Amino acid sequence: VIVYGRNPVREAQRGPREVTRVWEGLPDDELERICGSPDHQGICAEVAPYTYADPDSLLVDEDAVVLALDEIQDPHNLGAVIRVAEVAGLAGVVIPERRSAEVTPAVCKASAGAVEHLPVARVRNLADWLGEAKEADAWVYGASADGIPYGDPDYRGRVVVVLGAEDKGLRPRVAASCDELVALPMRGKVEALNVSTAAAALVYGILQFRMQS
Amino acid sequence: VIVYGRNPVREAQRGPREVTRVWEGLPDDELERICGSPDHQGICAEVAPYTYADPDSLLVDEDAVVLALDEIQDPHNLGAVIRVAEVAGLAGVVIPERRSAEVTPAVCKASAGAVEHLPVARVRNLADWLGEAKEADAWVYGASADGIPYGDPDYRGRVVVVLGAEDKGLRPRVAASCDELVALPMRGKVEALNVSTAAAALVYGILQFRMQS
Repeated sequence: VIVYGRNPVREAQRGPREVTRVWEGLPDDELERICGSPDHQGICAEVAPYTYADPDSLLVDEDAVVLALDEIQDPHNLGAVIRVAEVAGLAGVVIPERRSAEVTPAVCKASAGAVEHLPVARVRNLADWLGEAKEADAWVYGASADGIPYGDPDYRGRVVVVLGAEDKGLRPRVAASCDELVALPMRGKVEALNVSTAAAALVYGILQFRMQS
Repeated sequence: VIVYGRNPVREAQRGPREVTRVWEGLPDDELERICGSPDHQGICAEVAPYTYADPDSLLVDEDAVVLALDEIQDPHNLGAVIRVAEVAGLAGVVIPERRSAEVTPAVCKASAGAVEHLPVARVRNLADWLGEAKEADAWVYGASADGIPYGDPDYRGRVVVVLGAEDKGLRPRVAASCDELVALPMRGKVEALNVSTAAAALVYGILQFRMQS
């Protein structure tokens, strides 16, 4: 796999993936031919394939916070959410195997390399996994405009926050698998936040709740 | 000016700008030639130039919250921050005249059209304007890793939140013009949030503070 860009290459070197080769200082078009993207910022690297985490390992910690993403197909959005999760110190991100962006070099770039330091797990069926998470003592919150105010719940203990694609929201079976639906206040004329900014608002709200309780 | 994309064209039609012509249903390459971008999603429109707001008008309300951006040069980041500000119901966004992205069609697209409904003001000198904001009874918070925890201040009344470019942060004179520097908790290995996710975390933190006080 060829990752590209300054942050992605640096973080791959600092993270667990083996880096077998780095190209730097070549003409732009040569780098673009190697990595397949014009966004290489003058550097790309050959690295081992990304290793996904075991989804059950994410909820071992008794105060783990995990983000689950329901069919987020845009690599930029997936990368941006992974960056939020890593910076906030979450236990990991869960994505479904199908109809979801996977961890491609474009996602590495959009995450500013954060994906090298964050467990990302894939599950066959997201609704089923949310059921298992509940059995593992997690409380599952789905982000939805129909939800209760997001500041209301008690966010202690294991928490999973589920976010849907911005145009479609959560699928009905996924929404039904949540313990509670929560909503960010929307006070404007446009309909919704981007999924990464919604993730940031929710995740930092949860961290803030925990610091105050 | 030619704006492009489904949301930007729809929001231009709903907002104050005059829309003089809409192109839809043409071949993709023809639309791309008209608007100059491949991201048109099958639609573009000719609209009146964007009208910037008077910066002083943003602080009229006694509980106004304004985001000020110190030299954010990436149009995607500026658009994404404007979208957060509009969805959260803020009074507006302030940008400096120089070394900042302006409201171009690319910014309209990145804001999902939110810029049509949000006052954006340009100022000659951001540090000077922050001084004027303080004289107008606003409390000015700069986002900085060196700051106090962002959950500590009392965010009632007029508030200005200043965000810098993610690689450079606030310029020294801008940081010195703030009443207080505030920091989001950073618990990961990568250095910082993207400016739009930082804006979302801070702005929703402030709204949450106000709802609880």
